[in-house]
Amino acid sequence: MIRELTVDLGDRSYPIYIGQGLLQDIAVYLTKHGISKASPLLVVTDSHVAKHHLAAVQQRLEQDGFRTAVHTVASGEKSKSLRVLEDVVTTCLQAGLDRKSTIIALGGGVVGDLAGFVAASYMRGIRFVQIPTTILAHDSSVGGKVAVNHPLAKNIIGAFHQPELVLYDTTTLGTLPDRDVRSGLSEMIKHGLIWDAEFTAWCEDNADRLVGLDPEALQYGLYKGCSVKAAVVSQDERENDLRAILNLGHTIGHALEAVAGYNELLHGEAISIGMVGAAMLSVRLGNPESVYTTTERIFRKFGLPTRIPAHFDTDAIMRAMMHDKKFNEGKMVYIVPTEIGKVEINKNVSADLVRDIVDRLKQEA
Amino acid sequence: MIRELTVDLGDRSYPIYIGQGLLQDIAVYLTKHGISKASPLLVVTDSHVAKHHLAAVQQRLEQDGFRTAVHTVASGEKSKSLRVLEDVVTTCLQAGLDRKSTIIALGGGVVGDLAGFVAASYMRGIRFVQIPTTILAHDSSVGGKVAVNHPLAKNIIGAFHQPELVLYDTTTLGTLPDRDVRSGLSEMIKHGLIWDAEFTAWCEDNADRLVGLDPEALQYGLYKGCSVKAAVVSQDERENDLRAILNLGHTIGHALEAVAGYNELLHGEAISIGMVGAAMLSVRLGNPESVYTTTERIFRKFGLPTRIPAHFDTDAIMRAMMHDKKFNEGKMVYIVPTEIGKVEINKNVSADLVRDIVDRLKQEA
Ligand SMILES: NC(=O)c1ccc[n+]([C@@H]2O[C@H](COP(=O)([O-])OP(=O)(O)OC[C@H]3O[C@@H](n4cnc5c(N)ncnc54)[C@H](O)[C@@H]3O)[C@@H](O)[C@H]2O)c1
Ligand SMILES: NC(=O)c1ccc[n+]([C@@H]2O[C@H](COP(=O)([O-])OP(=O)(O)OC[C@H]3O[C@@H](n4cnc5c(N)ncnc54)[C@H](O)[C@@H]3O)[C@@H](O)[C@H]2O)c1
Ligand SMILES: [Zn+2]
Ligand SMILES: [Zn+2]
Repeated sequence: MIRELTVDLGDRSYPIYIGQGLLQDIAVYLTKHGISKASPLLVVTDSHVAKHHLAAVQQRLEQDGFRTAVHTVASGEKSKSLRVLEDVVTTCLQAGLDRKSTIIALGGGVVGDLAGFVAASYMRGIRFVQIPTTILAHDSSVGGKVAVNHPLAKNIIGAFHQPELVLYDTTTLGTLPDRDVRSGLSEMIKHGLIWDAEFTAWCEDNADRLVGLDPEALQYGLYKGCSVKAAVVSQDERENDLRAILNLGHTIGHALEAVAGYNELLHGEAISIGMVGAAMLSVRLGNPESVYTTTERIFRKFGLPTRIPAHFDTDAIMRAMMHDKKFNEGKMVYIVPTEIGKVEINKNVSADLVRDIVDRLKQEA
Repeated sequence: MIRELTVDLGDRSYPIYIGQGLLQDIAVYLTKHGISKASPLLVVTDSHVAKHHLAAVQQRLEQDGFRTAVHTVASGEKSKSLRVLEDVVTTCLQAGLDRKSTIIALGGGVVGDLAGFVAASYMRGIRFVQIPTTILAHDSSVGGKVAVNHPLAKNIIGAFHQPELVLYDTTTLGTLPDRDVRSGLSEMIKHGLIWDAEFTAWCEDNADRLVGLDPEALQYGLYKGCSVKAAVVSQDERENDLRAILNLGHTIGHALEAVAGYNELLHGEAISIGMVGAAMLSVRLGNPESVYTTTERIFRKFGLPTRIPAHFDTDAIMRAMMHDKKFNEGKMVYIVPTEIGKVEINKNVSADLVRDIVDRLKQEA
C-alpha cells in the first residue's frame, strides 16, 4: 500500500509518497515529476546510509538512464557545515551539474538539510528530491527548511527551498539503529502534541509497535506525522506565525544540542527533554498539571530522555539559547502546550522562568 | 539633485536613490523604508571603504539611535568566500541580530554580494540595504543576485535576495582608485550596449568626464545604467530568459577572472575583453563589422583592456568556461550583440567558435 499526500503551496506544491519498496520505482517517480535525464543528477548521502542503501538506488537510476554522481559525507551532525557544503559543491561542479540538474538527498535530516541547502544555493537554486531514510526525516524532509550549522548556532545559515517530491520508502528504516528510531519517533509524537490529541493517544498506545518498526504502524504514524507538518507548512511557509508551533520543545532542545557540541544528544532526544520542559512551563503558566504528566509519561514509554544530564551547565544552556533564533527584539517566544493536541505561541515568556525550568529539568531525575 | 527610480518587482519592489551627500540622511532613508531601531543593524564593509567612509556612516546611525555593529572584511574578491561568510555570521550572532535585523552593505560589488548572501541565508533570510561605493556597484547592487565564490567557480553559491533600498551617494566615489573607476564604467557601457544605442553614444562622448568623475555626468550615467538594469530585472527576476542579456561579455570575462585566480584582472576589465570578444563573435555570425569596431573603439577610449594578456592559457580559459553557468544541457548559451544597443540570446554557439575567438583575443594586440 502506498500512501500519498500533498504539501499545498501553490506553484511550489509537491507530493509525499510513503510505502514499502518505493525506491524500486525511483526512476518512474522522478520522471513523473519532471526530473529530466538530460542533466546530471547528484545523490548526496552519508556513510551509514551509503553502506545499506546507496548501491540499489544508484543502480536503479543508472539503469534507467539517469547520469548519476554521488557525494557521500561522514555520518552525523558535523556534516551540516559550510565546509562540507563547499565539498558538495566541488562535486556538483566536477559532475557538471547545471541549472536543470537535480540533487537527491538520500538519508536522514542531516543529509536532507545539507543537500537541500546546496540545492537552494548552487547556481542560486536548482531542484531537489528528498528520500528520507530515518523516522526523524518525516519531519525534516517536509516543509523546505534547509540549513547548515555555524559553530555558535544550529541551522542558522539556510534557506526556504521546497523539494520536488518526497519519496519515503519505509523498508530503508529497517537498518536504522534503535536509538535513532526512538529519536525520530520523538518528532512524530511532537506532531501529535501540537495538533491532534487522538493521534497522540494512538502513538502512546502503539509505542511498542512503533519502536519495533511494525510496518503498518510505522506507515500510519509517518503518514499522520507528515500530514500535520504539511498542514502547518501549507498555512505558513515562511514561519511568519503558525509554523513556529513546530518548534515545540526546540528552544531548550537546540540549546542542549549546542552545549553538547551536537554530539552527546540526538535531535529527537534533545527535543524530548525540551517538550517535557515546555509542559512543565505550561503548568507554571496555569495550565492543568495533566499536560505535564501525560507528556512525560509518553516520552518515558518510548524510552526517550526527559531530563537534562547533570553535567550540563545551566549558564551555557542559557547562553546558547540567547544565540538561537527564538528571540525577537529582546522578548522570548515560547511554544507552550495548553492541553494535549494544542499549543499556543507565547511571546512573553521571561528568561527567568525558562532558567527555572532548565534547573528543574537538571535536578529532578 | 537626487535622482530616484524603482525596481518593479511586486511586493519586492524597491527604490534606488542616486545623489551627492545622501548618506548624511541615511537614518531618514532607513526609517522611511521600514528599518526599525528595535533590532540591531550590521554594517558590512571592506578595509578600503572603512578607511574613507565607515566612521561617518556609523556615527550617523548611532547618533540617530540605530544599534550598529560593524564587520570589516579584507578588500578584494577573495572575501567573497564561504569562510568569510562564516565570519560575518559570527558577528551577526555576537551582535544579536534577529529576524527583524537588517544588514547594510557599504562597499563595492564584493561587499554587496557577500553581505547580500549573508542576509539571504542568516536565519533563512533577513533584510538588507545596498550602499554602493563603486561605479561597478551600480550594476551589482541592483537586481538581488547575491553570491560567494567557490575555488573552482565564481558566484556559484548564492541566492536571489532583493534589498529594501539602494542608497547611492556619489560623493563616496571620490576616493575610488582610477583603475576601479574605469572597471566600473565597463558595466555602465555594457548597459548601453545591450539596451540603448543613444546612451552608448553618450557614454563614448562623455568618456573623459566620466573617467574624471564629473559629478553631473557621473550621476546621469549611473542613473541610466541603473535604469537599464532595473528594467531588465523587473521583467525577469530569476533569469529565466531576458535577464541573461546582462551577461554580455561575461562568458569569457568570468573565465578570465577564474584563470587569473580573481586577482590580475578586475571584473570590469575582464568583461571589457569579453564584450570585445562577443562583438568579434557577432561578426563571425554574420552581423556587421561595425558592431566590433565600435565596441572596441569605446572600450579603448575608456582605457579598458580589449585583449587577453598573452600568458593566459587558452585551455585553462576553456576549462574555466565549462565550469561556469553558461552551459545548459550541453549547449552553449552566448549573448551576442547584433547591433549597438541590441543583443540576442544565442543558444547554439559552438565551443569551437568561442575557442577561436579566445585565440584571436590573445594574438592580436
Ligand atoms: N529541516 C527541518 O525542518 C528539520 C526538522 C527536524 C530536524 N531537522 C534536522 O534533522 C537532523 C536530524 O535528523 P536525523 O535524526 O535523521 O539525523 P541523521 O541524518 O544524522 O541520521 C541519524 C543517524 O542514522 C544514520 N542513518 C540514516 N538512515 C539510516 C538507515 N536507513 N539505516 C542506518 N542508518 C541510517 C545516519 O548515518 C546517522 O548516523 C538534525 O540536523 C536536525 O536539525 C531538520
Ligand atoms: N550581484 C551582481 O549582480 C553583480 C554584478 C556585477 C558584478 N558583481 C560582482 O561585483 C564584484 C566587483 O565589484 P567592484 O568592482 O565594486 O569590486 P570591489 O567591491 O572589490 O571594489 C573595488 C575596489 O575598490 C575599493 N573601494 C570600494 N569603494 C571604494 C571607495 N569609495 N573608495 C576607495 N576604495 C573603494 C575596494 O576595497 C576594492 O579594493 C565582483 O565580485 C563581481 O562578481 C556582482
Ligand atoms: Zn526538530
Ligand atoms: Zn558583471
